[in-house]
Amino acid sequence: MNIFICGLGLIGGSLAKAISARTSHTVVGYNRTKSVSEEALRVGAIAKAGEPKDLADCDIVIMGLYPKATIDFVKENLHYFKDGAILVDTCGIKTEVCEALGALTKDTSIRFIGGHPMAGIERSGFAYTFPELFDGASMILCPEYCSDESAVETLSALCREIGFGRITISTAEHHDKVIAFTSQLAHVVSSAYVHGEYATQHKGFSAGSFRDLTRVARLNAGMWTELFYENTENLSAVIGELIDNLQKYKTALDTNDREGMHKLLADGNERKIQSENL
Amino acid sequence: MNIFICGLGLIGGSLAKAISARTSHTVVGYNRTKSVSEEALRVGAIAKAGEPKDLADCDIVIMGLYPKATIDFVKENLHYFKDGAILVDTCGIKTEVCEALGALTKDTSIRFIGGHPMAGIERSGFAYTFPELFDGASMILCPEYCSDESAVETLSALCREIGFGRITISTAEHHDKVIAFTSQLAHVVSSAYVHGEYATQHKGFSAGSFRDLTRVARLNAGMWTELFYENTENLSAVIGELIDNLQKYKTALDTNDREGMHKLLADGNERKIQSENL
Repeated sequence: MNIFICGLGLIGGSLAKAISARTSHTVVGYNRTKSVSEEALRVGAIAKAGEPKDLADCDIVIMGLYPKATIDFVKENLHYFKDGAILVDTCGIKTEVCEALGALTKDTSIRFIGGHPMAGIERSGFAYTFPELFDGASMILCPEYCSDESAVETLSALCREIGFGRITISTAEHHDKVIAFTSQLAHVVSSAYVHGEYATQHKGFSAGSFRDLTRVARLNAGMWTELFYENTENLSAVIGELIDNLQKYKTALDTNDREGMHKLLADGNERKIQSENL
Repeated sequence: MNIFICGLGLIGGSLAKAISARTSHTVVGYNRTKSVSEEALRVGAIAKAGEPKDLADCDIVIMGLYPKATIDFVKENLHYFKDGAILVDTCGIKTEVCEALGALTKDTSIRFIGGHPMAGIERSGFAYTFPELFDGASMILCPEYCSDESAVETLSALCREIGFGRITISTAEHHDKVIAFTSQLAHVVSSAYVHGEYATQHKGFSAGSFRDLTRVARLNAGMWTELFYENTENLSAVIGELIDNLQKYKTALDTNDREGMHKLLADGNERKIQSENL
């Protein structure tokens, strides 16, 4: 198959490298900044540095852009798409993106499936891409706007071929609720944590727990701001839930409720073990 | 030298293994539960499974017990200590422990220095000990109750010999303020995080950020409860500070203040990079 990848950042670029290295498919890469696709071509991540009109020859189109840019690109270039092409995005938030792409492709032969590869590192850009990024990770697919089961199968097979360890089928709505908790909240907490007074005075006084809790404070502020505001309600709810839970620990401290604190910690320990054994 | 280690849990047992494997000193190990010191002797972590009276022959005494048990043991066995022995504890909280041990050793020749090895894993007990636990870590020493500089030097040299990468000299008060933030708060946040509704339903929807944010929710509830209540005021203050910071993100979401959110995230990114380059 010919696979068109639009946007050769960390995710799109790593997908390009994984597909080129591990499958017999041909990757056509497109990037607004030309020097990036030229570099991708030079290192063998893609077989061709393409243009939107190359969409006409591609069976699968993978969007590696932010939400708004993803929608804009598809809107502008819809007329280039090949009949029956499979379209998948890689945005971290699904409801708004899927609604928009679902509407755009509704009266076409394009088979659109929402996608979210659960992999990443706290860096961005083609310079940081690597083909092993998705090894063992979960690929979430939201096929609610696609009535053709075989498109899901084709995409799932491709994902497994390039290293994903699991395909998770979900509705966009459920995805956004859970992701608000597992991913967006994690970034908010890390970011809020390093706003603490001692975050820049910890030398000699810290070890693994501080490092892990603050790892993802290193983030792309523009991308995460956009993602947060596509999931405002869910994210606000889980931040509120966490604040309430933190307040319980604070209250147990302030009121000398040692039994209460012990129970909070013991329950947390139980829930963590349970969460690992799912 | 003869080194007495009281309590062969994760920290005491790993120190025993590191000293026995990497130095020419003789380790006398003592553990209330006899089977543990017998096991430590069997695997070569200690040279002798001792008794409190063996303190009489030991130049350095390392306490590997929780705060209260540390104070009780020293109190009960003070009369056994060798003249001029160096005493160091390994408790995660220093003000209360140092005050108590400072007072107990005040009119003796014992040279007491507070200690806190910044290393650990989310497991406890001798079964999980290993000699590399402290490799590259910081050893915090609080020498305010010890007027003899040479004792600090002896202890620092021993720490470097067994793998520590840095000796951090601090007052107990400063230690407890910073540790409340870097270590205790991290455990509170992880524990509070897994109380979230979706913590046990994340399968397929999570990756590294969820795993890292919740790693230390797996903890020894008894030990941490004790440590928290020896640092109530500092810990309560940093939980409060974090709640206030989290509230800023929530407010930015709820009021659609995208610029404010972008600034919070960008500042967090800056502070994280700064914290790594200290």
